[in-house]
Amino acid sequence: MPNELRIGMVGYGFMGRAHSNAYHRVNQFFDTAYQPVLKAIAARDQEKTKKFADRWGWERVERNWHKLVEAADIDAIDICSPNNTHHEIALAAAAAGKMVLCEKPLAMDLAQAREMTRAVEKTGKPNMVWFNYRRVPAISLAKQMIDEGRLGKVFHYRATYLQDWTISPKVPVGGAATWRLEKDVAGAGVSGDLSTHNIDTALWLNGPVRRVCGMTEIFIKDRKRPDGSPARVEIEDVCTFLARFANGSNGTFEATRYARGRKNKNSFEVNGEKGSIYFDLEDMHQLQYFNHEDPTHLQGWRTILVTGAEHPYMGNWWVPGCVIGYEHTFVNALADFLRGLEKGERVRPDFRDALETQAVAEAVLESARAEKWMSPQADLS
Amino acid sequence: MPNELRIGMVGYGFMGRAHSNAYHRVNQFFDTAYQPVLKAIAARDQEKTKKFADRWGWERVERNWHKLVEAADIDAIDICSPNNTHHEIALAAAAAGKMVLCEKPLAMDLAQAREMTRAVEKTGKPNMVWFNYRRVPAISLAKQMIDEGRLGKVFHYRATYLQDWTISPKVPVGGAATWRLEKDVAGAGVSGDLSTHNIDTALWLNGPVRRVCGMTEIFIKDRKRPDGSPARVEIEDVCTFLARFANGSNGTFEATRYARGRKNKNSFEVNGEKGSIYFDLEDMHQLQYFNHEDPTHLQGWRTILVTGAEHPYMGNWWVPGCVIGYEHTFVNALADFLRGLEKGERVRPDFRDALETQAVAEAVLESARAEKWMSPQADLS
Amino acid sequence: MPNELRIGMVGYGFMGRAHSNAYHRVNQFFDTAYQPVLKAIAARDQEKTKKFADRWGWERVERNWHKLVEAADIDAIDICSPNNTHHEIALAAAAAGKMVLCEKPLAMDLAQAREMTRAVEKTGKPNMVWFNYRRVPAISLAKQMIDEGRLGKVFHYRATYLQDWTISPKVPVGGAATWRLEKDVAGAGVSGDLSTHNIDTALWLNGPVRRVCGMTEIFIKDRKRPDGSPARVEIEDVCTFLARFANGSNGTFEATRYARGRKNKNSFEVNGEKGSIYFDLEDMHQLQYFNHEDPTHLQGWRTILVTGAEHPYMGNWWVPGCVIGYEHTFVNALADFLRGLEKGERVRPDFRDALETQAVAEAVLESARAEKWMSPQADLS
Amino acid sequence: MPNELRIGMVGYGFMGRAHSNAYHRVNQFFDTAYQPVLKAIAARDQEKTKKFADRWGWERVERNWHKLVEAADIDAIDICSPNNTHHEIALAAAAAGKMVLCEKPLAMDLAQAREMTRAVEKTGKPNMVWFNYRRVPAISLAKQMIDEGRLGKVFHYRATYLQDWTISPKVPVGGAATWRLEKDVAGAGVSGDLSTHNIDTALWLNGPVRRVCGMTEIFIKDRKRPDGSPARVEIEDVCTFLARFANGSNGTFEATRYARGRKNKNSFEVNGEKGSIYFDLEDMHQLQYFNHEDPTHLQGWRTILVTGAEHPYMGNWWVPGCVIGYEHTFVNALADFLRGLEKGERVRPDFRDALETQAVAEAVLESARAEKWMSPQADLS
Repeated sequence: MPNELRIGMVGYGFMGRAHSNAYHRVNQFFDTAYQPVLKAIAARDQEKTKKFADRWGWERVERNWHKLVEAADIDAIDICSPNNTHHEIALAAAAAGKMVLCEKPLAMDLAQAREMTRAVEKTGKPNMVWFNYRRVPAISLAKQMIDEGRLGKVFHYRATYLQDWTISPKVPVGGAATWRLEKDVAGAGVSGDLSTHNIDTALWLNGPVRRVCGMTEIFIKDRKRPDGSPARVEIEDVCTFLARFANGSNGTFEATRYARGRKNKNSFEVNGEKGSIYFDLEDMHQLQYFNHEDPTHLQGWRTILVTGAEHPYMGNWWVPGCVIGYEHTFVNALADFLRGLEKGERVRPDFRDALETQAVAEAVLESARAEKWMSPQADLS
Repeated sequence: MPNELRIGMVGYGFMGRAHSNAYHRVNQFFDTAYQPVLKAIAARDQEKTKKFADRWGWERVERNWHKLVEAADIDAIDICSPNNTHHEIALAAAAAGKMVLCEKPLAMDLAQAREMTRAVEKTGKPNMVWFNYRRVPAISLAKQMIDEGRLGKVFHYRATYLQDWTISPKVPVGGAATWRLEKDVAGAGVSGDLSTHNIDTALWLNGPVRRVCGMTEIFIKDRKRPDGSPARVEIEDVCTFLARFANGSNGTFEATRYARGRKNKNSFEVNGEKGSIYFDLEDMHQLQYFNHEDPTHLQGWRTILVTGAEHPYMGNWWVPGCVIGYEHTFVNALADFLRGLEKGERVRPDFRDALETQAVAEAVLESARAEKWMSPQADLS
Repeated sequence: MPNELRIGMVGYGFMGRAHSNAYHRVNQFFDTAYQPVLKAIAARDQEKTKKFADRWGWERVERNWHKLVEAADIDAIDICSPNNTHHEIALAAAAAGKMVLCEKPLAMDLAQAREMTRAVEKTGKPNMVWFNYRRVPAISLAKQMIDEGRLGKVFHYRATYLQDWTISPKVPVGGAATWRLEKDVAGAGVSGDLSTHNIDTALWLNGPVRRVCGMTEIFIKDRKRPDGSPARVEIEDVCTFLARFANGSNGTFEATRYARGRKNKNSFEVNGEKGSIYFDLEDMHQLQYFNHEDPTHLQGWRTILVTGAEHPYMGNWWVPGCVIGYEHTFVNALADFLRGLEKGERVRPDFRDALETQAVAEAVLESARAEKWMSPQADLS
Repeated sequence: MPNELRIGMVGYGFMGRAHSNAYHRVNQFFDTAYQPVLKAIAARDQEKTKKFADRWGWERVERNWHKLVEAADIDAIDICSPNNTHHEIALAAAAAGKMVLCEKPLAMDLAQAREMTRAVEKTGKPNMVWFNYRRVPAISLAKQMIDEGRLGKVFHYRATYLQDWTISPKVPVGGAATWRLEKDVAGAGVSGDLSTHNIDTALWLNGPVRRVCGMTEIFIKDRKRPDGSPARVEIEDVCTFLARFANGSNGTFEATRYARGRKNKNSFEVNGEKGSIYFDLEDMHQLQYFNHEDPTHLQGWRTILVTGAEHPYMGNWWVPGCVIGYEHTFVNALADFLRGLEKGERVRPDFRDALETQAVAEAVLESARAEKWMSPQADLS
């Protein structure tokens, strides 16, 4: 009989749904020593929260997240609410000695991230930040290949996160779907929402970033609120930057919501002396690989269909050729977290990793503002 | 409060898992008037079945499927056991007045399929055959586009189902994973396992098949059983056929498990006067489309990323650019079945449709044996 | 100083242009002991022929191809005129002791092809049939890979030649561009024009075909001549067939001019025990390859960009990454022919090879007519 | 009878070959009022030049390019020699009143480029710089589509030029193939060789660049000369930059010779409000296009096979589905130049355009050196 891991979750939005799904499914597909129990959920709108809880099997609903933090029957607080709430909840949860799992981006700014990281580390309890894309099997395979030495010395890292859903001036600022355009709630624009995914993956695959030089843009500066009142857009629509990695390689990063036709193009390419890899989230079941050590006349970019039992996580799902989708990345992440609990091992990315990502993102924004190169400051103090 | 649909399932293999998952998830993602209840599961190996039932939340385990058929607290029998059991279970379930849901291929041969269809139709209850690929959003979109008249008169239909998992002579005949190579259990080879998927899709998208001419092959005739004893392979490794459709178009179909590098290439292309479409299950989130009515200099094959809210089923899942996977096709199928229950409407493909598919498959095998063109006989008597 | 190879060419159409280009370019890109001299061209329309000759540097124009055959200053007759002229010209040229180079398809029927082959072989002079696609570098690379043993035992051969230019009922029968629709001139439909390309490649890559079973179709039976008078279409729009190769593999072939959106999809896939390859003329600079001997977790279809100096013919052209196009296949073919002259070696495909292709094509048409399997008869007598 | 355009060419290297080919072929495929005559070629190595001239039909060979400039029977000087010779030759040719055609990059630096532009403009004669990629049919189609208004307001421009041929430390500095690594000969590294192609295309498709911020890198600083003596590498291996265009869009540019597996990936993507386009020179027969005005459920990136008679230049070549290659871009460019002569119209890109490109490239290098944003200075004085 597995141990219970009793969850209190804050927020019932898109991420609340993805996490609830993960809590239900992880034990059906992974053998773990811990079993999540969907104990309680807290969010402002009681009626909607109740409906959500019924659908997803949460045992009880709380009007206020403080109740979760205070509850004796809850082991871990899962923060799925908008960015501007992360800091306060994480500090309170840590103070109460709970494990903390937090959606990305970790914080509204670097100062918050530092404080949060110090707080959760002080508890001595495990913590995690849901940079779920590390658990895309193809991205985990990329990491494995790099660790196997298949790329050799790296020269280039090239990442994009391209979407197109805010091109219309009719997209409002604020509200359930579009709080990401509101500075007070989101903190930053695409740098927080999209670039942080690129950065987290880059730090994992290619190591620390030493210097960055950024460019941001707000294409549509005047929008409306859902109620029709005018709203000035204060967060960046675009975040592009050049980077120099500690390993000597050069990087380019571009995130935008104005790339017509690109829906979820979270892509990266790594060019090494011995080989290269390329990934695109729009075809998340594939990893492209060029092996310079193949016979010369047979070299080419190959598309690895990452659905085999020998590929990361895939042995837990179906059979070769049967793809998994977006939501499975959360289940895979949770499985790793549970295994970490069992073995007493650090599971990454945690707050410390997310702090490093936040430091890069903040340096980029600062660089764009000042129009000069900056160095990320990921130290804790 | 939704009505209960109490399920008794036979078999706990790969399909038992896919169906169990669907029963759990359908109400989390679809609003339906019916809610499946995982009442009982029956399979031979009690220990394994018990373990499976625990993992997937089946209320009780039965040693014998007859118990399910006899149980008063079960509304529907779901047949996930090997092909050689479908006939007997379906007849018994129908005789007991249950709804019957059956995995594909429907039967060991056409005679069985006819008898089963008559039996379930006599009950007046809904029935379904799990040709799940109709519920791939991209395939449903293909159907929608054809119904919208976007292809015009059809000239060609071209289908393949290519895999490569039986190339090694070491793959045994019989056992949990490889009963598909055993004639007594599977009935037929790739014609039943793979071609029937192609045929079901073709009948749906392109209408009835009038004549077929087939070619089959057994590449490795001598294998071993899991216990090492010799086994003569009696089912076809390959099933290829030419077809003439009632709408005047020509068809080619090829199914094999000897196409090195193809893992799950269930593909089809339809060429019409006004446009063409192409699908490949290995990239199941995409549908390719050529529109001859575009301006001449801008015509080209376009890749529709079938992840938008405007695409079939996708509004129930995540957001544009977030793909779903293999297992979701079963959830989508179940959602349709439940909606059919609610509305009192026929949900397809049902036994009658599967009978038609079986008739084509049988004509193909017969044609290959006799080396001549044959006409499928899908009549009920 | 290279030896002259004095050419007399019949026909100034599309192929006359492709060959003229090859004669001009071969010595600029290949070091050969022979240099073609564009001696004389013969075609019916003197004015147009004169204009063509001026543009392409043919020394003189003849009203009648007999003049070429009789000319003492001509070494080789190149037949680029419509299919119904090949037989008579080839016999006359052979009788005059000329080398003969002939466009494909070789003849109107198998009987003609036999007679032509006997005639040219009797001269003891080199002969060639312009199945130019063997000289696509990617196809030559495919041949090289097969000869290197990279595919192992072959299970499947799958070829298509898909176009869409005759879908409109307004395409007339007869005239410069559309004599291919006229039975008296073309002999056969797509089986001669398109399938023969597929067959030639298949025989080269996969060896002899033992048995075939064909299906043909005429989708539009009534068209008009260029002058508006009615024309009954008597040649097939579609030619599809199943095949059994001597090496035990199964084949499927499909040629049509009714595949909307496919412009020149001359494709083939070969599935072997150790690997597979795939080619598509619409991306003629690429060859796709799956290597089953790669480490399991890294296996995938790779796209070889066939533009390297190590690839067939490419060292004679530009630099890696710079593609060549359609016309270069004729230059490559000619270079091979000239090298054959120099070394006194047989260059293929020659009439004997084309006879074998013709035998398969004729068996397919006969099979479609009789609705039964047939065996190609490529013997000379 | 067309007018003669008598050419004197300097250099017989890779570009000398590409241009010679163009001079031979242009009248075979295009109807023009002018016909190039391959009058004389000048280069240092007389033996090799003689051999080259024989192969390519140049009437005479000169030891010194001054002879070409002075020759009365030469109308146009075509500069194909290394970058460090362009300035002197162009000035002398202009002083002699010749037309000047120059390979790219135009000059060693911006100051040279200004002087050269002033000089050729003073002659009042036509001039051209061989940025041949504008004449890739797919890129010309991109321009046409933008001019047709199919993209609407542009938000992003994203370009790369990725190669991998200098990764090995064994690649020497200097010599016929590798003078591009030598500062005294090449002037700059990839910024001149590769980025200028990207910039020229960008200026054509997306208008002027206002500001740039660059990053360069030399990965291997110590190499050897062909004779084995040590050579310090002083030119950049990588040139990456951010850009702000006058039309308000953001740009990213990356050029490198260290992108393992990328052979000639000259790519660009333009994202506009109404649509997007993508091009990659490795598949130069294709243009990808996303049209936001398609019905929502049918939107997708389409691959236009740019081989139709309705596409730029393609009506002069073969038939739909038959691709052309690298060398044809020079023929197309030359055809345009000849048509310009005939009509008395400016043909672009000319020296003035190349000056603008040089200004951007120089600002990028300067920006990378100074680590700050810079504005290109393309004025003539």
